[in-house]
Amino acid sequence: MLTVLPMTSINSHLNYTSIRNQTMSLAAPLSAEDCCVQAMPDASPVKWHLAHTTWFFETFVLESWELEFKPYHSAFRVLFNSYYNAIGDKHPRSQRGMLSRPSLDEVMAYRANVDQRIQALLVSNIDNQALLQMIELGLHHEQQHQELMLSDIKYLLSLNPLFPSYKNISESVEPPNELRTKLPKSTKDLMWCNFDAGLVQLGRNSSENKSENTEFFFDNETPRHQVYLQAYKLASRLVTNSEYAQFIAEGGYQQAQYWLSEGWDWRKAQDRHHPLYWVKENNVWNEFTLNGLAPLNPDQPVVHISYFEADAYARWAEARLPTEAEWENAAANLPLKGHFSDSGLFHPMPDQDLYNLLSPDGLTQMFGDVWEWTQSSYAPYPGFRAKADAVGEYNGKFMVNQYVLRGGSCVTPVNHLRASYRNFFPAHACWQFSGIRLAR
Amino acid sequence: MLTVLPMTSINSHLNYTSIRNQTMSLAAPLSAEDCCVQAMPDASPVKWHLAHTTWFFETFVLESWELEFKPYHSAFRVLFNSYYNAIGDKHPRSQRGMLSRPSLDEVMAYRANVDQRIQALLVSNIDNQALLQMIELGLHHEQQHQELMLSDIKYLLSLNPLFPSYKNISESVEPPNELRTKLPKSTKDLMWCNFDAGLVQLGRNSSENKSENTEFFFDNETPRHQVYLQAYKLASRLVTNSEYAQFIAEGGYQQAQYWLSEGWDWRKAQDRHHPLYWVKENNVWNEFTLNGLAPLNPDQPVVHISYFEADAYARWAEARLPTEAEWENAAANLPLKGHFSDSGLFHPMPDQDLYNLLSPDGLTQMFGDVWEWTQSSYAPYPGFRAKADAVGEYNGKFMVNQYVLRGGSCVTPVNHLRASYRNFFPAHACWQFSGIRLAR
Amino acid sequence: MLTVLPMTSINSHLNYTSIRNQTMSLAAPLSAEDCCVQAMPDASPVKWHLAHTTWFFETFVLESWELEFKPYHSAFRVLFNSYYNAIGDKHPRSQRGMLSRPSLDEVMAYRANVDQRIQALLVSNIDNQALLQMIELGLHHEQQHQELMLSDIKYLLSLNPLFPSYKNISESVEPPNELRTKLPKSTKDLMWCNFDAGLVQLGRNSSENKSENTEFFFDNETPRHQVYLQAYKLASRLVTNSEYAQFIAEGGYQQAQYWLSEGWDWRKAQDRHHPLYWVKENNVWNEFTLNGLAPLNPDQPVVHISYFEADAYARWAEARLPTEAEWENAAANLPLKGHFSDSGLFHPMPDQDLYNLLSPDGLTQMFGDVWEWTQSSYAPYPGFRAKADAVGEYNGKFMVNQYVLRGGSCVTPVNHLRASYRNFFPAHACWQFSGIRLAR
Amino acid sequence: MLTVLPMTSINSHLNYTSIRNQTMSLAAPLSAEDCCVQAMPDASPVKWHLAHTTWFFETFVLESWELEFKPYHSAFRVLFNSYYNAIGDKHPRSQRGMLSRPSLDEVMAYRANVDQRIQALLVSNIDNQALLQMIELGLHHEQQHQELMLSDIKYLLSLNPLFPSYKNISESVEPPNELRTKLPKSTKDLMWCNFDAGLVQLGRNSSENKSENTEFFFDNETPRHQVYLQAYKLASRLVTNSEYAQFIAEGGYQQAQYWLSEGWDWRKAQDRHHPLYWVKENNVWNEFTLNGLAPLNPDQPVVHISYFEADAYARWAEARLPTEAEWENAAANLPLKGHFSDSGLFHPMPDQDLYNLLSPDGLTQMFGDVWEWTQSSYAPYPGFRAKADAVGEYNGKFMVNQYVLRGGSCVTPVNHLRASYRNFFPAHACWQFSGIRLAR
Repeated sequence: MLTVLPMTSINSHLNYTSIRNQTMSLAAPLSAEDCCVQAMPDASPVKWHLAHTTWFFETFVLESWELEFKPYHSAFRVLFNSYYNAIGDKHPRSQRGMLSRPSLDEVMAYRANVDQRIQALLVSNIDNQALLQMIELGLHHEQQHQELMLSDIKYLLSLNPLFPSYKNISESVEPPNELRTKLPKSTKDLMWCNFDAGLVQLGRNSSENKSENTEFFFDNETPRHQVYLQAYKLASRLVTNSEYAQFIAEGGYQQAQYWLSEGWDWRKAQDRHHPLYWVKENNVWNEFTLNGLAPLNPDQPVVHISYFEADAYARWAEARLPTEAEWENAAANLPLKGHFSDSGLFHPMPDQDLYNLLSPDGLTQMFGDVWEWTQSSYAPYPGFRAKADAVGEYNGKFMVNQYVLRGGSCVTPVNHLRASYRNFFPAHACWQFSGIRLAR
Repeated sequence: MLTVLPMTSINSHLNYTSIRNQTMSLAAPLSAEDCCVQAMPDASPVKWHLAHTTWFFETFVLESWELEFKPYHSAFRVLFNSYYNAIGDKHPRSQRGMLSRPSLDEVMAYRANVDQRIQALLVSNIDNQALLQMIELGLHHEQQHQELMLSDIKYLLSLNPLFPSYKNISESVEPPNELRTKLPKSTKDLMWCNFDAGLVQLGRNSSENKSENTEFFFDNETPRHQVYLQAYKLASRLVTNSEYAQFIAEGGYQQAQYWLSEGWDWRKAQDRHHPLYWVKENNVWNEFTLNGLAPLNPDQPVVHISYFEADAYARWAEARLPTEAEWENAAANLPLKGHFSDSGLFHPMPDQDLYNLLSPDGLTQMFGDVWEWTQSSYAPYPGFRAKADAVGEYNGKFMVNQYVLRGGSCVTPVNHLRASYRNFFPAHACWQFSGIRLAR
Repeated sequence: MLTVLPMTSINSHLNYTSIRNQTMSLAAPLSAEDCCVQAMPDASPVKWHLAHTTWFFETFVLESWELEFKPYHSAFRVLFNSYYNAIGDKHPRSQRGMLSRPSLDEVMAYRANVDQRIQALLVSNIDNQALLQMIELGLHHEQQHQELMLSDIKYLLSLNPLFPSYKNISESVEPPNELRTKLPKSTKDLMWCNFDAGLVQLGRNSSENKSENTEFFFDNETPRHQVYLQAYKLASRLVTNSEYAQFIAEGGYQQAQYWLSEGWDWRKAQDRHHPLYWVKENNVWNEFTLNGLAPLNPDQPVVHISYFEADAYARWAEARLPTEAEWENAAANLPLKGHFSDSGLFHPMPDQDLYNLLSPDGLTQMFGDVWEWTQSSYAPYPGFRAKADAVGEYNGKFMVNQYVLRGGSCVTPVNHLRASYRNFFPAHACWQFSGIRLAR
Repeated sequence: MLTVLPMTSINSHLNYTSIRNQTMSLAAPLSAEDCCVQAMPDASPVKWHLAHTTWFFETFVLESWELEFKPYHSAFRVLFNSYYNAIGDKHPRSQRGMLSRPSLDEVMAYRANVDQRIQALLVSNIDNQALLQMIELGLHHEQQHQELMLSDIKYLLSLNPLFPSYKNISESVEPPNELRTKLPKSTKDLMWCNFDAGLVQLGRNSSENKSENTEFFFDNETPRHQVYLQAYKLASRLVTNSEYAQFIAEGGYQQAQYWLSEGWDWRKAQDRHHPLYWVKENNVWNEFTLNGLAPLNPDQPVVHISYFEADAYARWAEARLPTEAEWENAAANLPLKGHFSDSGLFHPMPDQDLYNLLSPDGLTQMFGDVWEWTQSSYAPYPGFRAKADAVGEYNGKFMVNQYVLRGGSCVTPVNHLRASYRNFFPAHACWQFSGIRLAR
């Protein structure tokens, strides 16, 4: 089911080429101008993503294993360092959009140069497990930035009054009209899946002697550990646009009682009255997508929701958000099925099961479509220790004031995701493809 | 052991008088000017605390049970509402210091009026359990504000270049000199107490039919629930000033590797190089206390530490902060012994056990002295539901981006505290009396 | 007409006592709490004004001439320095409200001590012209702070939802009802006074050998110099509340065309729709005054107007603001008559001449009532040189991004004002008693 | 001497093509990425300048005179409006850098389209004076944006750690080495030119019946009016880098006494210790130029100086800045000679006269090289009235909190400049090519 096979020198090579090319094809619809602009401090220019992911391979692979290593360009060492304080200076994050030079062409040449050197290195290091593992980490890092490229460019294009589309996306998932009417009309019609109380296992074992055929995972998924769960229920599907529109229509954004205190302050300060990217024209809701402005599809999962909004919606719906343990326990044995970036749709879709009503009491939409906010603050698993080297800065140092999201989205590559995967963002973040699954 | 006895109309009356008087005696050393100023948006003027705690009794007790209730002053309804959105308008928090009127004298008259009416109500409602419970809540609310009055006035006085003292505090806890030399010199000498893995019970049962003789607790301590803990160790005592000074001396504030990413940004933005209230003069550390500026006592627990600093210190010390479950499990059966506000010292003290070395492998300083940061984000216990009324805003709506602290401090009344008590503040907060206990 | 007589040791002594006492009597209606709070960074606590004016005499008089001078309190040297960088450190302006200590009583003791020493010094230095001149400067400085005390306390009280009054002011100036109807109804009815083109003299001569009997003036009024004026017209009276209300009613705050670009940005950022202190209740305009909230008197001069508002009003009225040269040329020979602080009204009043219609073509209200904005940026007169010492910081260093106001206000002492007096504030300032006279 | 000839349909046509082409050739060295980024809110992307200047012709010329006018693109009407509130909505200034679409190519097509239509219009309106005058205004507007393009792109490139050059500029002005030693070494050696007191005429006549052969000027240069000047002296040349470096070396940026109070606050808030674009490497001053980083030439005029710095320097040098009247009176009859943008140097140059010592008592460098700060706040000339239409927003509404600069710079086209030209910027602005001429 999962496509990330164990790393051998051969498929590492294949994966390397394929994943690096995928980044290029995501950038292909964009002009050099599109790739240069930084839309807000939390987002980065696409050009920076293209360069930074290359910097990762140059710094953590070539510099360690390439004989007679020389940096491609001494200034790139600083310009494209993201946050690895142990590596040295870095260009300030909020200034990434000022870099009209190097040009997009020069960054592409940088990519080509590093790719060629990595491939040469792979040929001569066919059995170097440490190197292969570092490349594997770099490829998962690259996939994370593929997702960020799409979120960041969507945010940039949304600021443009022309509402330009990233790409003309012809495919879509439309139910036959006769099925539409069968859809549940409100959260009251939600199906709830029951889970018993008990001790469960979460996370992954981080044995030093990784046996072959072991799937990749990040250090923040370790160690595997035991958790006691009370009995709980999960909604069988994601919250839809029509349900969320009902929350708005019933004054959800005007009543403090539904909101966390900090969430209410955020809502007021931002003057938010609806999700990011919703646009009302002639009293009809539209939604900005990577395909441009489109009428809001009532059956699609609501997306680009902050934790504050997700929590407020849940309270209004007399439910709550799941914990990450509840989510992972439910997802652990499900097939990794859903709308991922591989589909090229780049927008969440109504689940066909919803229309077919095939699985009235089973979980649907657990993977892909939208990242699902959990109520769990991002924290180390019991026994977690970050590595001492620069790569150790990868995850551990963000473990404060962030909330865990699970399940991947329509801009996540399917082979990047797994049930134990922990994504995390601050509670106010809504430019990611994040949505809501209710729990009780 | 606990001093909060079951509420009957009699001791309710006694408690009411005694706790309300305690608030007055805490304000007694202060001038009207001291009581009027708001030192920062997170802190409130003492006068505001005096009025707001009175507003609580007027709003939630008198308005509900007093026949022919009339507000003492219609404007006070808004001015002294803190955050209860359900109650109506409130004066903006950051503007509390603008209220030179009503004067301190007028607020004292307001207190006296409400006190007299509450006492009259108690006489005629000797068996009204709902009323008695609301008064009990009001008294615990009052005790929380007693603690805040002391933290807030300390912060205000610290901004004054004259370093004025709140009160001349003569008592102190000094070890015989011959014992000082026996003290452990660094964290390497810390004793660690071991706890086995297993299922434990945390929190309190919130049965509707509260039997008599039941101790008070807040809703955020409920419901009692089961948690699985891995085996862990707790440091036998708090981190001391001398240990923290060593962290500083070894460059702890200059090395990003010890810090959470957001913590490092906070440190830089605030230009922090030592704890709040530490002042270096002639190359010697002093500390601002409620007794004025004093030489730093190396054996005292370090205090006024943010979560960011506590976490960085723990990483430097090759340890971590405990979870709140680990802490409560360890504390559940310990006597409620420590330096609380009742001592009138208003500063953490070295534990005598430390000098006597009587309990080499037991936990000391678990209660009083300093609030101990846990790594646990403030979140609802499984099954927690906030009440629907205004009092339901008390705790639940703050459950985001805050971290739990346990154990009480030297400005907490002893009869306000218990092992299951959950305090919470944002990670950057350091004007509370917060310190560090390490775990592994 | 002018009450500032030439300084001899005798009347210096008298003036000293009288002006210092006047400061005390302005503070008398206020509580210690009222005197402690800083309402905004541009305003200072009354207590700070009381201490700072005393610091001025201690620093610039006692320190220079008192034998065996010792500072009253070493910390006061820093705490109550306003901006004299040459004198040494100063407490940050925005932190003045944090000083609950020293108490108001202690500041009063400081005042009494310095007053007693100054008086002793005057007895023994009966002919010391340098000392006498410095005392005279200190007294004018004191009068400036008398005015600021009233503006600052008004701003503070206005932030209080109770709308407290500074003082119960019984007097007022009311026209007989039968005269009211004769009043001009709009700016179209304004009388205009004509002035011919020509060379005029402005400012004061700063001869080193000040002859006796010379009136005091600030260095920014020097040197006297020649200016060529084109022919111009001045409105015979100030703009009234009813005229300004018409500007509002006709959309003046909604139309960018009337506003300077920076003024329009200010208006939007502040969300201003009317002058500071205007409050609409039940569709009727009220105005906050030092006597509390009162119905807006349509015949009174509009007050608490920013330069931006004054300029926008003038453009709407098809007129402009006068230059300071035009104003001074017109005022030079007029009697110093008007509602000053000496009246104890502390609010601008309709001019009786207005009702009596005695001076249909003469200028009225040129002095007192409100400071009149001119279109002149505050700049040095040709040949102006600031003195090299600390007192030289008095005026010159503020000569950028400020606009000149002329004529004094209802909170200015009459013996502080003269036709050549140059007041100055930034274009956004509106907490001063500033108003509008039109020119063409 | 002046190169702007009277507008006839013929040379209008010639000028139109030539000035519009000049804009294109200034953009030619830049990539689409360079043209897209907005470096700060006060600066605009080059692409925006290219589009906005075109919008000006489309809106104020084509829309008025073209039969069957249709907008080129409806959204461009809003996107490329700068500040003309009368025209309608405008895209927020600080968001101009977010417009990766329309692309640079699309903007170039917009330019070509409007150019072609303007030229067609000129052919058929050979005698339409109103149209010709509006085109002339548009061309001067275009030239202003040519200058801003160069200032704005310089600022952007300066933020790039690669210090890229805008263009490889080979020419330069180097004195023979033997002359260098003859140069004055400090301000003490400055020559001063004397001007007598008296009545002078300033500005331009704005007669309605513009006779033919009349040179263009902006409304803010009108009306011509009389001013009385005291006797004054002007420095014969601009302040040089070596002189300014001496100011720095002697602690000019550390001593508050030289600075305006607001200037000192600006310096501290910005942590400024030298002019923008000065970079110290290995203890040697370099300067960022449009040709990249270069060693500081001690003989060149200091450039990119804020008003605050210019004023502080003047005070340190025991001089002052000139008023605009003093400057214009001195410049009125001088030849328009200097280093303008036409030279392609884009950096101020030492004057050859300096080395030749040909004009020991005459004024040099009055035009070109650097804009010279005057102490005059930007204000309307006596009798100035802005026009009522949209073009009337051109100048008048900026007349607050700005200071006048005179003489043009090395990025100003020579045929854009004249002695009566009034440029204006806020006192903190330093990204313009602004420098210092002293007066006394």
